[in-house]
Amino acid sequence: VAAGTSELGWLQSALTEESRFRSTPEVLEWLGSRARENTLAVRRIPFAEMDQWHFEAQSGDLVHRTGGFFRIEGLRVRTNFGPVREWEQPIINQPEIGILGIISRSFDGIPYFLMQAKMEPGNVNRVQLSPTVQATRSNFSRVHKGRLPEYLEYFLDRSRSRVVVDLLQAEQGTRFLRKRNRNMIVEVDEDVPLRDDFCWLTLGQIKRLATIPNLVNMDSRSVLSNVRLMDGAPGGRRGAELLAKVLEERPFAGAIDSFERDLLVSQGEHGQALHSLDEILSWITEMKTRYDLQTEYVPLSRVRGWTRDERGIRDDGGRFFEVLAVAVQAGNREVPAWTQPLLQSSRPGITGVLARKIRGVLHFLMQARVEPGFRDTVEITPTVTCGQGCDAPASAPPPPFLDHFLQPGRHHVRYQAVQSLEGGRFYHDQNTYAVVELRPDAELEVPDNYLWLTLQQLKDLLRHNTVINIDTRELLACLSL
Amino acid sequence: VAAGTSELGWLQSALTEESRFRSTPEVLEWLGSRARENTLAVRRIPFAEMDQWHFEAQSGDLVHRTGGFFRIEGLRVRTNFGPVREWEQPIINQPEIGILGIISRSFDGIPYFLMQAKMEPGNVNRVQLSPTVQATRSNFSRVHKGRLPEYLEYFLDRSRSRVVVDLLQAEQGTRFLRKRNRNMIVEVDEDVPLRDDFCWLTLGQIKRLATIPNLVNMDSRSVLSNVRLMDGAPGGRRGAELLAKVLEERPFAGAIDSFERDLLVSQGEHGQALHSLDEILSWITEMKTRYDLQTEYVPLSRVRGWTRDERGIRDDGGRFFEVLAVAVQAGNREVPAWTQPLLQSSRPGITGVLARKIRGVLHFLMQARVEPGFRDTVEITPTVTCGQGCDAPASAPPPPFLDHFLQPGRHHVRYQAVQSLEGGRFYHDQNTYAVVELRPDAELEVPDNYLWLTLQQLKDLLRHNTVINIDTRELLACLSL
Repeated sequence: VAAGTSELGWLQSALTEESRFRSTPEVLEWLGSRARENTLAVRRIPFAEMDQWHFEAQSGDLVHRTGGFFRIEGLRVRTNFGPVREWEQPIINQPEIGILGIISRSFDGIPYFLMQAKMEPGNVNRVQLSPTVQATRSNFSRVHKGRLPEYLEYFLDRSRSRVVVDLLQAEQGTRFLRKRNRNMIVEVDEDVPLRDDFCWLTLGQIKRLATIPNLVNMDSRSVLSNVRLMDGAPGGRRGAELLAKVLEERPFAGAIDSFERDLLVSQGEHGQALHSLDEILSWITEMKTRYDLQTEYVPLSRVRGWTRDERGIRDDGGRFFEVLAVAVQAGNREVPAWTQPLLQSSRPGITGVLARKIRGVLHFLMQARVEPGFRDTVEITPTVTCGQGCDAPASAPPPPFLDHFLQPGRHHVRYQAVQSLEGGRFYHDQNTYAVVELRPDAELEVPDNYLWLTLQQLKDLLRHNTVINIDTRELLACLSL
Repeated sequence: VAAGTSELGWLQSALTEESRFRSTPEVLEWLGSRARENTLAVRRIPFAEMDQWHFEAQSGDLVHRTGGFFRIEGLRVRTNFGPVREWEQPIINQPEIGILGIISRSFDGIPYFLMQAKMEPGNVNRVQLSPTVQATRSNFSRVHKGRLPEYLEYFLDRSRSRVVVDLLQAEQGTRFLRKRNRNMIVEVDEDVPLRDDFCWLTLGQIKRLATIPNLVNMDSRSVLSNVRLMDGAPGGRRGAELLAKVLEERPFAGAIDSFERDLLVSQGEHGQALHSLDEILSWITEMKTRYDLQTEYVPLSRVRGWTRDERGIRDDGGRFFEVLAVAVQAGNREVPAWTQPLLQSSRPGITGVLARKIRGVLHFLMQARVEPGFRDTVEITPTVTCGQGCDAPASAPPPPFLDHFLQPGRHHVRYQAVQSLEGGRFYHDQNTYAVVELRPDAELEVPDNYLWLTLQQLKDLLRHNTVINIDTRELLACLSL
């Protein structure tokens, strides 16, 4: 296996929508045609009509006949973080580690990514751009007796590919119990057969598609957030320098705006950050020492504050989420028809990060936050996660900085788009993702569980397993491609 | 707070035994005098004579009257790693995060470390060099009603110090249930009052003392292993270059031998490593995905394969360890007399790392290994951990590579010393720590849960919490100071 894509290659892929395959408008057409050709009929059903799923006799936990896939059970939570210190809730328990994998291959020196037009029962639209492979261990072991996922061999057989990214990253801590997936990108040099429903895209194209609501799915964003456009190791070039080199070779990239330039500099600068890596690690250590999280299994039938009827399990205030059941009929899935439970949030969420230039380099205000399903008490989350991410009671004060996203006023909204949660577990669950850059003269009081980090520092921390939470990754992917 | 110690400063401290306080022989004399002046009488007692400790009525767990400190309970273990797939054992459960902290201060541009001559009931000798502060949360909250630990304020009040190291690192996975401590080094500029039993030492002095058995205690080695002599970040100088600069300024360092030079190069070189950081992270991800670890609480009185009598809890084969009780009378401790349980391994252990030059740079053969108390299934451990670290039955084959340490033959033994486990939990528990460098022509078959890493890569991974296990840290500290 030859040497991998150069640093310059990743950056060029991120800056170009020129494709030797499909132009971005053609990709949109193709996605439309995939949606027309592949049918996916989803309808809500009463729990009693579920086929392979049932409520376990003693516990009332919602389980699959085989014991595979996942189970929905109850969790008692105690923490000294946030306005509510103790509560109970349903949570998804799926201890196995799945693979979310994307194949990359270079054409004319530019890496392309093999993306899949995939339907999921919970999607608001039918088809979204998904990783090359989304495989749970249930897929491998064929709990559902379907076909093996396409292209899986490129991730399992290491002699056929080079690893670019291979990290364990966490899922939503408000909905999953300590769940994480293997985020993988592998590079291949050989020809890869192009099957139906798959398409090669540049990072620039994926970034453009991420400005359109609900097109680039959650798993794709999670995986792509791990891409490093510039290497932090010595010898890696600084952002401004590297950018100049790319602009020289590819004048089309001259069209990037000043915010994009700022993002590249923030990903490439080493010396100008407000905090050193050791200071940031110390802050994380302090937060993990300061905050407690104690969780305990509770049978689903005995979760306090939640009520189950024929069609749903809901919190009594109607502010959090609902567990429901659907029947699905599909054309292009391994299994043509099935029933399954899904979760639906009671309201759309806001995931927002504040940005500002400090010492000439763009920094992002990140929060050290506790969610019940986090593996290690604290993860680094966006400035604000509200809605699916923050199930505070109505009486609680709004989270800090929420106003900056509801009424940005004189500040600059640098990114804003509605994106979906993963349609295999979440039903019509959408969040608004936003980045707001503060005006230079803005004054801001920052509680000590918040810290300003550069894009490069966030990319460095992504290499520490399960430190950067999924909301942050979702947003990073839309920004930094 | 002014800028911290320069890269050159740490390296100079590591290379010098010249001290403006006590010479190394004077430190040895001082340790002897502390041992004479401070009495610590320890005797084994039957469990029934323990004062504040008792076996809990229902479970038989060994607990403190207050519920504080720690408890010894039972654990059922299932794993697909190693020759034994299922067993039960006693384990120490101490969920709180303690502080192991060392104060550093520069004199004449050279950083010194404030070390404590401390007695612990389990020490084979009485006094060992300990961190400035060893504080559990029980110390802070004063469960045992003693004095607050000296110097603790420098670690709690951040305005008085600069953080050099502040990481959560794991303890022994064979004896502790997911325990970790906060490893801290803080730099101060102000005068620090020098109390009895404390002394300023250079890294070079501590490294010299670590060649003598049982002088530098386990916690000191754990904390000091986190020191980075050369910064991996861009702008950081390469090992050879930096060393040349030090030798120019400080000719005494010319006395270092060729292995020490190799160590410095291995800590400073970026380009010559066998594997990239991404490849190493992928290997760790693969190991965490491949190996399973399921553990479950068992009441101590019902742990299969272990028997309790008046004076000890032992495994029936007598191959693992024993839980016992001691009565302690001390002069210089917060509490003048107490009783407590300790653990004693049934045999001394061997902790060994194989080294070899690859592409001109020293690499170390590290193992991805599962121990029951690991927080995340797998940690990076030495080539061999045998004895306290590997409680395999007599019928199991010896661990790979053990022969290289029992009969090094033509290979070079680069470091070898007997060191103690922490005397506050372990009774006369000693391991031989060794580094053996393979002859250049040696052929070695390496199973795929082993990987060759440079010293710099190990230092990088130390910044990822609880990835580098304690045995590795103990050995690194003796090597890389």
